[in-house]
Amino acid sequence: MNRFRYTVQGARNKVLSAVKRLSAETIEVSEACGRVCAENILVNENIPSREISLRDGYAVNSKDLASECALKSLEIAGAITAGDIPGAALEPGACVRITTGAPVPDGADSVIPYEDVSIRQNKIFVEKEIGKGQFVMKSGDIARSGDIVAKTGTMMTPMTISAIVDTGRAYVKVVRRPRVGILVTGNEVVEPDVKRKDQQVYCSNRYLLGALARNYGGEEIFLGICPDSEKETLSVLEAVHGCDCVVISGGTGKGEHDCVKGAWKKAGVDILFDGVSMHPGRSTACGIRGGVLYFSLPGNPLASGVAFVQFVSVALLNMAGRNVSSPPCTRAILAENLRLKGNGIERFFWGRTTCGKGELKVVPAGTEKKGFLQKIAGANCVIASSSKEGVLKKGETVTVQPVCLGLDLSYLTFFYS
Amino acid sequence: MNRFRYTVQGARNKVLSAVKRLSAETIEVSEACGRVCAENILVNENIPSREISLRDGYAVNSKDLASECALKSLEIAGAITAGDIPGAALEPGACVRITTGAPVPDGADSVIPYEDVSIRQNKIFVEKEIGKGQFVMKSGDIARSGDIVAKTGTMMTPMTISAIVDTGRAYVKVVRRPRVGILVTGNEVVEPDVKRKDQQVYCSNRYLLGALARNYGGEEIFLGICPDSEKETLSVLEAVHGCDCVVISGGTGKGEHDCVKGAWKKAGVDILFDGVSMHPGRSTACGIRGGVLYFSLPGNPLASGVAFVQFVSVALLNMAGRNVSSPPCTRAILAENLRLKGNGIERFFWGRTTCGKGELKVVPAGTEKKGFLQKIAGANCVIASSSKEGVLKKGETVTVQPVCLGLDLSYLTFFYS
Repeated sequence: MNRFRYTVQGARNKVLSAVKRLSAETIEVSEACGRVCAENILVNENIPSREISLRDGYAVNSKDLASECALKSLEIAGAITAGDIPGAALEPGACVRITTGAPVPDGADSVIPYEDVSIRQNKIFVEKEIGKGQFVMKSGDIARSGDIVAKTGTMMTPMTISAIVDTGRAYVKVVRRPRVGILVTGNEVVEPDVKRKDQQVYCSNRYLLGALARNYGGEEIFLGICPDSEKETLSVLEAVHGCDCVVISGGTGKGEHDCVKGAWKKAGVDILFDGVSMHPGRSTACGIRGGVLYFSLPGNPLASGVAFVQFVSVALLNMAGRNVSSPPCTRAILAENLRLKGNGIERFFWGRTTCGKGELKVVPAGTEKKGFLQKIAGANCVIASSSKEGVLKKGETVTVQPVCLGLDLSYLTFFYS
Repeated sequence: MNRFRYTVQGARNKVLSAVKRLSAETIEVSEACGRVCAENILVNENIPSREISLRDGYAVNSKDLASECALKSLEIAGAITAGDIPGAALEPGACVRITTGAPVPDGADSVIPYEDVSIRQNKIFVEKEIGKGQFVMKSGDIARSGDIVAKTGTMMTPMTISAIVDTGRAYVKVVRRPRVGILVTGNEVVEPDVKRKDQQVYCSNRYLLGALARNYGGEEIFLGICPDSEKETLSVLEAVHGCDCVVISGGTGKGEHDCVKGAWKKAGVDILFDGVSMHPGRSTACGIRGGVLYFSLPGNPLASGVAFVQFVSVALLNMAGRNVSSPPCTRAILAENLRLKGNGIERFFWGRTTCGKGELKVVPAGTEKKGFLQKIAGANCVIASSSKEGVLKKGETVTVQPVCLGLDLSYLTFFYS
């Protein structure tokens, strides 16, 4: 049996075929940055709804100042400020002081900025030719009734939020965030901030996977640390956590204490894939039960993080309403040689990108034999390669998958339309 | 008097000379993604603290299997699992079953994976040569006591968090987020979700500036909508809000109703710059009082957003412990011609980037004369150019400043070291 049935993309495709967009929730528009809109936001009246001034100055009727007309001064008949109710119509030969954003009175069609007039005896004197309609914004110039400022499926940016408020909306319907259960297995694993015993390790995996879940738009629900016992793993799976997705780290090997797959079988989790042709992370598996996706990731943090970025990311992004078939990636220039097996199997390395002179460079991290924690601690991306060369050379361009997209994910708008 | 004393970078430098890194706070490490570390995180004992197995298999003494030695089978003397307290030392000619992560018993130096042995009568039979020390991780191989996994000033990624937990820490000291007061001025401005009157507009600026504040790592504190009155503006400035920075939109012109600068003078705000050689946003001003930075931005949302990205961003990023002298930017290819004045004055346009075939393209948004709200609603970046050409041509590479960095900002690690 070929244990590694699926390529990385093949395994992702299994996830994509099973994943469903989550339901919608209504949130304050101020919270909507990076969320995916679950309704069409329509403009329901012209913006602006009437003519407004674009300058501080004087509202005039351009006919009074036409070149064939001797009249180059106008009586100041009053003043109107932004927020004022429009008053009486402008009389011929008159003007009104007006501020930016104020309604242009009937009878006026243009605004002359303060700096273009002189004032004597309650009159403005205009030297300069004026253009009819100058500095007046017409009804609907910003948006017309019926325009759509955000569609279902739009990922919202600060400007989208601003435009939604322009339509008078303070709330918006968005696809809800996926709830990601995180379960860490292993008799040796303990929480930090307790003095561990010699044979114990801290559950850094929980924190890594939690941070990655947030980075791909999910909410972390910690399901605890579970000993290496099929029975105990099963009891966690059978509890109702309200998760949309459950990520389990550890227990992926073939040893007698690796019991995740056994618990899945008993719990009725249908396997979507079990084993992927990749390194690290080849033992990664995915299943589904009652619409909830289950991921079994390796126990090694470097490997579990890589597997999360390859598969869980895609599940979370699609649940939250984004149509992506692979994790967000970009290209960077290798700053050091990077050794591969060169067997064409997809390989992943942690790395740290830095930007200088408009160029994105990436330094591999965690490839050292000893003391790699210091360097891996700075990693901000995964380097992906399926090269058949034994070495990727310094200066070559490689694919990098950033793992620091930010809680609100709107940076994704940079990558996806 | 040259009203536009400062270039954009000149004005930023005034901000940089005044801005101070904020104090530290202690937070849960799970919340630390994108935050800046305010302490050195030291490894205080070797990781792992003793030899552990890297495979599920059998712990052996390689001497028992040396090629000159006839003995190719070993008695299974027991089993040890990850989390177990190491038991008695291995006797010569014996082996123990061992799981990944379990402590290697004294007397053993190597681990043979399950798949490399056969078992008969409680003995393992080894055909393959083994390498001394294989699949055993030595004390300190991951990190040595005294290693530093995060330094003061490090921006934290998911991997940094994981490494901090590996040191046994559940809490971490970080630079606190800047509190950004947002004040919107204008008699005409009202909150959304009320039926506005004809002469009123919704305060989309508040939401735009709030979203931008979050995107650059700040916390928004809304100071309300203030009428165009120097007295009322002053009363807001004199209240204590606990803000590290106050951003005021509107009231930057020279009209009689523009009273921000007047209120600043009465409140004792010292001007750092007043007017910048840029378009839009040339009326932008910045002052300081009691260590709090005050920004006066234009009332027009497109202009206020541009000014925020040029100046407030840099203040917030530095307050939060990042050493940046300009907003994060990258390069993109113009997907349409873009008209400039061509006078060398720095110009800014909103745009939307999309990524295809590894190329970042940018479409200008909001340059349309009419109905621009639909298009500007999708903007995710600001395009910056000080070209002296009248037109930037389709296909040219331009600088773009993403405005969707995400709440946790760790994407910035992509740009800054």
